[in-house]
Amino acid sequence: MVAKLGVGVLGVGEMGRRHAENIRRLVPESRLVAIADAAVDRAHQVATELEIDHSFRSLEQMLGCKEIDAVLISTPDKFHSEAIEVAAAAGKDILCEKPLALNLADARRALDAVAKAGVRLQIGFMRRYDPAYESAMSRVEAGEIGDPVVFKSVGRDKDVPPLAAYQSGVNGMVFYNNTIHDFDLARWLMRDEVSEVHSYTTVAIRPEVAQYGDVVASVVNLKYEHGAIGNVESYVQAIYGYDVRTEIVGSKGSIFVGSLEKTPATFLSASGGTHILADHFLSRFADAYLAEVVDFVHNMLHDRPPWVTGEDGLRALEIAVAAENSHTRGKSCQVMANG
Amino acid sequence: MVAKLGVGVLGVGEMGRRHAENIRRLVPESRLVAIADAAVDRAHQVATELEIDHSFRSLEQMLGCKEIDAVLISTPDKFHSEAIEVAAAAGKDILCEKPLALNLADARRALDAVAKAGVRLQIGFMRRYDPAYESAMSRVEAGEIGDPVVFKSVGRDKDVPPLAAYQSGVNGMVFYNNTIHDFDLARWLMRDEVSEVHSYTTVAIRPEVAQYGDVVASVVNLKYEHGAIGNVESYVQAIYGYDVRTEIVGSKGSIFVGSLEKTPATFLSASGGTHILADHFLSRFADAYLAEVVDFVHNMLHDRPPWVTGEDGLRALEIAVAAENSHTRGKSCQVMANG
Amino acid sequence: MVAKLGVGVLGVGEMGRRHAENIRRLVPESRLVAIADAAVDRAHQVATELEIDHSFRSLEQMLGCKEIDAVLISTPDKFHSEAIEVAAAAGKDILCEKPLALNLADARRALDAVAKAGVRLQIGFMRRYDPAYESAMSRVEAGEIGDPVVFKSVGRDKDVPPLAAYQSGVNGMVFYNNTIHDFDLARWLMRDEVSEVHSYTTVAIRPEVAQYGDVVASVVNLKYEHGAIGNVESYVQAIYGYDVRTEIVGSKGSIFVGSLEKTPATFLSASGGTHILADHFLSRFADAYLAEVVDFVHNMLHDRPPWVTGEDGLRALEIAVAAENSHTRGKSCQVMANG
Amino acid sequence: MVAKLGVGVLGVGEMGRRHAENIRRLVPESRLVAIADAAVDRAHQVATELEIDHSFRSLEQMLGCKEIDAVLISTPDKFHSEAIEVAAAAGKDILCEKPLALNLADARRALDAVAKAGVRLQIGFMRRYDPAYESAMSRVEAGEIGDPVVFKSVGRDKDVPPLAAYQSGVNGMVFYNNTIHDFDLARWLMRDEVSEVHSYTTVAIRPEVAQYGDVVASVVNLKYEHGAIGNVESYVQAIYGYDVRTEIVGSKGSIFVGSLEKTPATFLSASGGTHILADHFLSRFADAYLAEVVDFVHNMLHDRPPWVTGEDGLRALEIAVAAENSHTRGKSCQVMANG
Repeated sequence: MVAKLGVGVLGVGEMGRRHAENIRRLVPESRLVAIADAAVDRAHQVATELEIDHSFRSLEQMLGCKEIDAVLISTPDKFHSEAIEVAAAAGKDILCEKPLALNLADARRALDAVAKAGVRLQIGFMRRYDPAYESAMSRVEAGEIGDPVVFKSVGRDKDVPPLAAYQSGVNGMVFYNNTIHDFDLARWLMRDEVSEVHSYTTVAIRPEVAQYGDVVASVVNLKYEHGAIGNVESYVQAIYGYDVRTEIVGSKGSIFVGSLEKTPATFLSASGGTHILADHFLSRFADAYLAEVVDFVHNMLHDRPPWVTGEDGLRALEIAVAAENSHTRGKSCQVMANG
Repeated sequence: MVAKLGVGVLGVGEMGRRHAENIRRLVPESRLVAIADAAVDRAHQVATELEIDHSFRSLEQMLGCKEIDAVLISTPDKFHSEAIEVAAAAGKDILCEKPLALNLADARRALDAVAKAGVRLQIGFMRRYDPAYESAMSRVEAGEIGDPVVFKSVGRDKDVPPLAAYQSGVNGMVFYNNTIHDFDLARWLMRDEVSEVHSYTTVAIRPEVAQYGDVVASVVNLKYEHGAIGNVESYVQAIYGYDVRTEIVGSKGSIFVGSLEKTPATFLSASGGTHILADHFLSRFADAYLAEVVDFVHNMLHDRPPWVTGEDGLRALEIAVAAENSHTRGKSCQVMANG
Repeated sequence: MVAKLGVGVLGVGEMGRRHAENIRRLVPESRLVAIADAAVDRAHQVATELEIDHSFRSLEQMLGCKEIDAVLISTPDKFHSEAIEVAAAAGKDILCEKPLALNLADARRALDAVAKAGVRLQIGFMRRYDPAYESAMSRVEAGEIGDPVVFKSVGRDKDVPPLAAYQSGVNGMVFYNNTIHDFDLARWLMRDEVSEVHSYTTVAIRPEVAQYGDVVASVVNLKYEHGAIGNVESYVQAIYGYDVRTEIVGSKGSIFVGSLEKTPATFLSASGGTHILADHFLSRFADAYLAEVVDFVHNMLHDRPPWVTGEDGLRALEIAVAAENSHTRGKSCQVMANG
Repeated sequence: MVAKLGVGVLGVGEMGRRHAENIRRLVPESRLVAIADAAVDRAHQVATELEIDHSFRSLEQMLGCKEIDAVLISTPDKFHSEAIEVAAAAGKDILCEKPLALNLADARRALDAVAKAGVRLQIGFMRRYDPAYESAMSRVEAGEIGDPVVFKSVGRDKDVPPLAAYQSGVNGMVFYNNTIHDFDLARWLMRDEVSEVHSYTTVAIRPEVAQYGDVVASVVNLKYEHGAIGNVESYVQAIYGYDVRTEIVGSKGSIFVGSLEKTPATFLSASGGTHILADHFLSRFADAYLAEVVDFVHNMLHDRPPWVTGEDGLRALEIAVAAENSHTRGKSCQVMANG
């Protein structure tokens, strides 16, 4: 029997727990070795449920397990870059949730650590693994839409985030935590780089989030290096559902990705026809989260580079930084490559 | 740690293999103990891939494994009822793929064996576990559509079945192998019994299947005991996709279940807007197949009766038999309860 | 200026009034000369609103207007065939609403009168003029779906018909008044003749309509001369909307016609996404009703035969008669061509 | 019989011709008196087809017809404001196509002329009369979406505009000719004023339009006075269809208006399911164009103010001017009310 990739998962909140489950059950080429979480009880509980032996309070402790070949980082945003440095120093390959870091200095330090250690790093832009987005990209690459002209993307979360989520200070503002997915798609699907952005934001319906440097909704205009333009919208409390939709508009055709419906059922009465709407990223992108890990594991085992690189993480972060600068300064801002 | 339900899977063709994978990886309360298949090489290969120790050539051999508490039967249709008798005689609980049997005599003998042995039997009408169908049923039960008036269902498979599938003679004709799902829904969603049916069938585009007693497409009119009516259509080679849709039409409202789209992506060009269509039951009903086994395992472990019973299997079979009789005799036929 | 076709409209209920409006305003090649209605006040009122000079109590009176070249008959069903006979005897071309008649004897007498008088007769199967149905037919004729295998059609009206509509006794039961549209589509789109039918019907949710020989819902299985099969459903009080949908299922592809949505607006809230549904044939088929009259007028003016003939009216009626016979006799019935 | 509003139509290109047809045939309270067009042959031809007596080479000539109570202006954009001045001076009420003018000075001069003459002016923002947009607005007003947070709108034309359209120099660039509809919706549906905008534009796929001061596509970020934000995109050669969609995103719910499908027909084959797409504003908004004129005529006849006012025309124009300034200057620009 071929060797499996031993994986340790750092951070088992909602997202990390899903990754741990996928690795444990659905990725035949991998073996879930250990779980670490600053909330060690949670680490222990997930380890028990998944029937694995090792749980730890920290990445450093977990790295003591010799069977660990790779680390999956799904801590809050703030701790990503440092965890990358630690894991890299220990010689482990890394799959890190987005964003790579919350500022460019941290990001570069993390990438340097990865380079220096000679390990590999994949960033968790899982939408690239979604079958609908993948089929869109295939057709873009096949030239079916001609030249790309306009990129549009919408990302709306369903529920009002608890105020505690802002108070904890461990996650980035909306551009780093949500819109960064769209910033990555903006590069990937258009096969071009964003050179300048302009943001408007609002806290009108929830002014109290302003004190945490965050916003409720944003629209970010995009200007590309080779002439295309775009816009990305984020809204963190849409109430009606989890709504992620993207349009790649070209000179010969266009592609729309996304749908509002959760289940294929329509309820019809004198007051109209009603659908149940998608409500969560873990259901909408269940296949993508799995495919992402399967691909990472496969590439690591077979000595291939990861598909979504640390460089991709840096580029998307640069756009997010520019979007935040535009929000803060009230004018359009250039995306500073390595700036 | 709580005991798990030890399961042996009999038959690992396309369907049984999925069941085996689900039990192995995704049903924490169960343990996949062994696999049996008349094609023993296939049994061995699946066992290897799923990393379990035991594979066998027959149910009888597999029943030698003491850790087996329950048997999942996913052989060709023809062998269902006998396998139920054997598993029951061995004191095992059973989850058997549809149909229960290919004739009423076999079906009753299987149910008698189950009753005599005091074991439990669930029939694989997995659509009842599909989130869309479940939400439909919740609303029917909540009275949202008033009295049910008309039941409609369509089941179309994508690809032309290979002639070998007919020649093997191990599966029932379309009413037993495909339409039986709709016959079950016809009872379940309308909460009433079908009392009479009328069938038209066709082999026009593939006359060679007639010699095997099968047809290419069928429409079956339904008459219910309490006044409702309905129609069920099946077509085994629709080419464009796997298309399962159901309508429950009531006095106050209606519910439609089903959708043609596989992925939420639309490709737009001067020639129109195009969707990728659903193509296979294993993807359309992936969640349902898993939920079915999770529920079976849970009920067995906790000494509860199964949800979809042998009686349900018999009732749907009675409708299929009446539909075949109508096809053969050219007139409407009564559904003979225990007839 | 080219001469226009002078048209008299007989019967200005909801349907006839729409025809009169279309002829008056939207059919440049025609001139609305007069209106007749047994309810002479209504005839007068519509004439006033449409600013034309002549209104009459009867067809006979209206035929005194020399400028009338053609008569559009939109009385209740019961009076269609006799009006055809009278108009034909007066040498007028005729556009008659469906059904041609309520029984085969009347239908044949009407067709004989038309033949004897050497006038032309078009039957109001307006769905053939609907852009969606037309595009479907173009593709069927282009061979895009291969051989037709299954025909499916649903016709549901929104509101509960008033009991007075049954008591008046002037319209045919559901097969003649509603399903006859689907019977016409069944012939036209499949390019084949229906040879046998089987009906189930229900009055369960409104037993009082039974005394008028009518039903609330029906499903009619169809058998075609060349091997295809089909099913047509009608339901006269669906509550949620006006729902007309048709599927032509072929050996290489299929075509679906119809949509539930009235306006392209979706209302999204925590309880789901809701559409406004189509509610009436005059809005769903507004374009078709107009195109039908435009085509009739054009053909009459330019000495061409009508597109949808009296023969088409007879064939659809024969299927309706067989469907009623099946309903009455409880068994499948052959469609008697000229029988 | 009640008097009718005598209307003269100025400009019978594609748009004006539709208005003339509607007035002639479908607006019972109005009478089409005359048609004027600088292309006098075209004026004459349309008059002949619509069977009216008078056609003229200029507005001044047409105003000689005493039966004219109101003038409908549908010339190229450049001539709107001057035509308003002339018609106002003659004491006629006015329905003028968008935009009110191509710059703010002209717009104010036109509004001054209207005020001085004591006539009434309606601007042709016909989307407000579209049933889908109307139902959206009703629900916004009913508070169903709570506070408005984000406004999104897309307007894409199907075909590549001929270069001659740019060379003629008689129409405004995209912000004045296309996006102005969205700027009006942005104010109307959000019930708030836009205070600042930021534009990115592109000519990448057709650089030759730059010399005419125009662009191929644009994205305009919007900032509202009371805290909401938005984005509007225009693209003049989408190829796949005529695509107008709007989202009003609120604190409790959202409303989406628009659909890509032209006819409710789906063509299914092994390569997927395909829809025919909307292709032209005259079909998509046919009902709205008619309702607009019906409402204008009714208000004029009954001495009521028009619904969509000159002030509305000015406000939308101010946003367009700011959008163009942002495009030219490369930074966000304030919307200068009367600025």
